[in-house]
Amino acid sequence: MDLADGILAGDRLALARTLSLVENGTDEGKSILSILYPHTGKAHLVGVTGASGTGKSSLVNQLARYYRNPAPDWQPRRVAIVAVDPTSPFTGGAILGDRIRMRDLAGDSGVFIRSMATRGSLGGIASATSAVAQVLDAAGYDLILIETVGAGQSEVDIARLAHTTIVVEAPGFGDDIQAIKAGILEIADVLVVNKADLPGVENTERALRGSLNLAHPLPHRFMHHGMIEIVPEQTAASAVNEPLWVPPILRTVALDGTGIPKLVEAISNHRLHLETTGGWEQRERWRLQTELDLLLQTTLMDEFRLSLPEGAYEHALQDMFERRMSPFQAIEKLIDRSRGRA
Amino acid sequence: MDLADGILAGDRLALARTLSLVENGTDEGKSILSILYPHTGKAHLVGVTGASGTGKSSLVNQLARYYRNPAPDWQPRRVAIVAVDPTSPFTGGAILGDRIRMRDLAGDSGVFIRSMATRGSLGGIASATSAVAQVLDAAGYDLILIETVGAGQSEVDIARLAHTTIVVEAPGFGDDIQAIKAGILEIADVLVVNKADLPGVENTERALRGSLNLAHPLPHRFMHHGMIEIVPEQTAASAVNEPLWVPPILRTVALDGTGIPKLVEAISNHRLHLETTGGWEQRERWRLQTELDLLLQTTLMDEFRLSLPEGAYEHALQDMFERRMSPFQAIEKLIDRSRGRA
Repeated sequence: MDLADGILAGDRLALARTLSLVENGTDEGKSILSILYPHTGKAHLVGVTGASGTGKSSLVNQLARYYRNPAPDWQPRRVAIVAVDPTSPFTGGAILGDRIRMRDLAGDSGVFIRSMATRGSLGGIASATSAVAQVLDAAGYDLILIETVGAGQSEVDIARLAHTTIVVEAPGFGDDIQAIKAGILEIADVLVVNKADLPGVENTERALRGSLNLAHPLPHRFMHHGMIEIVPEQTAASAVNEPLWVPPILRTVALDGTGIPKLVEAISNHRLHLETTGGWEQRERWRLQTELDLLLQTTLMDEFRLSLPEGAYEHALQDMFERRMSPFQAIEKLIDRSRGRA
Repeated sequence: MDLADGILAGDRLALARTLSLVENGTDEGKSILSILYPHTGKAHLVGVTGASGTGKSSLVNQLARYYRNPAPDWQPRRVAIVAVDPTSPFTGGAILGDRIRMRDLAGDSGVFIRSMATRGSLGGIASATSAVAQVLDAAGYDLILIETVGAGQSEVDIARLAHTTIVVEAPGFGDDIQAIKAGILEIADVLVVNKADLPGVENTERALRGSLNLAHPLPHRFMHHGMIEIVPEQTAASAVNEPLWVPPILRTVALDGTGIPKLVEAISNHRLHLETTGGWEQRERWRLQTELDLLLQTTLMDEFRLSLPEGAYEHALQDMFERRMSPFQAIEKLIDRSRGRA
C-alpha cells in the first residue's frame, strides 16, 4: 500500500512518514500532497497564538482532551495538534514540548500531535505548516489546532491559513501600551484570558476590550497583502449586509480545565457564523491565496538560485560588502546574469 | 539641492522625505539609496527585541537619552530609533508610540525617530527596515536602534540585519517552558531583564541563564538559512581560535534609568569584541546577505506577477478552491504560463 492510500485508510505510520516528507519539501512529499489534495477542505483549521508564557500549549492540550471527551450532547471529534516553533531550530524545545504533551494524550488514536521544528527560510514555515495541515485534513482529522509562539509576521502568516484564530493572553501581559502595539488582536476571532485565576484578570480583560475597539477586526479580514487584493466593493457589501462577528473574550484556566467548554462553544459558533454568512468560502479563498503566494515565493527563489552561473551570487555579495554596488544594483546584475545577459 | 545631497548635509526634512520614498519602495527611493550606499557601513546597528510588555520602548528611549548625555568620559553620539511594528498596520499604535517618545526626545537634532508601520508583504518589513537603516547610516547616525515587537520569524530576520541584538525580558515572562521554546535567545548578544524592581527578577535571571546554556548562541551565528550556507570549516575554525562572546545578563529599570550605563557599556563591548575578532566583518557579510535575499524575494515576486497573462493567477486560485488542482500543480501551471508555455 502506498503512503497516500495508507493515510486515507487511517494508517498513522504512513501519516507520520508523509508529514516528514512534506515538511522537508521532498518531491515525493509534493506528489503525495497532490494525490491527497482532493480529499482536503473538510477540517476546521484553528490557529492558537499569543505571547510566550500565556499557557498556550496547556490550553491546546485541554482543547484536544475536551474534543475527545465532550459534554454528552456533543460528538467526539478527531483532533490534530500542529505546534509551530519558528524561532527555535536549535533548542530542541519542540521535542521537549512533545514529550510533555504525549503523557497527556498518548494512546488515543483520535489524536495526532506534530511538532514542526522547521528551520525556516523566509516564508518557509507557513508554507510547511499549510502542507502539514493539508495532509492531516485528508487524513480525516476534524479539527486541526495550529499553535504558534509569539506575535511576529510569521504568526500572522500562519493565522491567515486558519479559519478561526484564537489569541491567548494572560494577566500581566495586557495592561501596557505594548499590548495595543502588538497588533495580533486584529487577527483574533476569539480572545482568551488564560491563567484567569491570577490577580489582574479584570485589568487584562479591560485592556483587551479597549484594544479590540481600536483594532477593527473586520476590515482587516477583507484586506490581503499578497499578490492580489480582494475586490473592495464585494467585501464592503458583505460588511454592510452581513452580521458582524464580535470576538468574544473568554476566561480559562488551562491547568484545571476551567472555561474549556465555553471556548469550544465559541470555536463552534465562529464556524457556524462563517458558514451562514458566506465567510467560510471567503476564508477558504484567502487561505488558499496565502498558500499559493508562500509557495510561489519559495519556488521562485529556488529556481533563481539554480539559474545563476556559479559564483555570481557570492560576487554580488562581495560588491555590496565593498560598497561598489548597492543592494538594488546587485539585484539588477544578478537578474541579468540569471538570464544570460551579463 | 536634491534629496541625497540634503541627507549627506544633515537636512532632516530631506531625510524624512527619503525615508518615506524608501519605505514605500518607490523607484526614486531606490535610486537615492544607490547614491547613498557608498556612504553607509559606519553605523552600529543595534536590534532590541522581546515580548510585549517588557518595556522595550522605554528602554530604547533611555538608551537614546544616555547616548546624547553620557558619562563625562564618553562622547555624545547621534542616535536614530527605528520602531518596527510588523503586525499592526491598523491600530495606529506606531503613531501613538511616537508621540509618547517625542515628548521625551523632541528638539534634539542628534536624535531621529522613525516608526515603520509598513503593511508588510512577505519579507517586506525586514527589507524596508534594512533600507531605512541604510539611509540613517548615510545620514551620519552613529547608533541605529531597531526596536521590534514579538518573537516571530520577522524579528529573527530583523535581528540578522543588526550587529548587536539585545533581547529584553521582564519578571514573570521567563519562568516558563515557553521562554525556552521562544528561541529568540539564540540571537541574543546582550540579555536585559527590564522592570528589575519587580518581584521575581532572580527567577527570570535564573531561567534566562538556563535557557542560554541550551541555546548555543555561537553555532547559530554561523548558520544562514538563506541562499547559500557559510563555509562550515571557516566558521568552525573561528569558533575554536577566537574568544567566545558570552551574552551578559543585565538588570535595568527603564522608567528611572537604572542600569542604562552598564547596558551602553555592554553594547560598546560587543562592538569591540566583534572588531577585534573579525566578527564585525563576518556580521556585515551576513547582514548584507540577508538583505540581498529579502530584496531578491520581493523583486522576483513582483516580476513574476507582471509576467502572468491577465486572469491567470485568479484562475489558478479558483482551480485550487475547487480542488481540481493542488497548490503544487497550480504553481507549475502558473510558471508555465508566465513563460508563455501554456
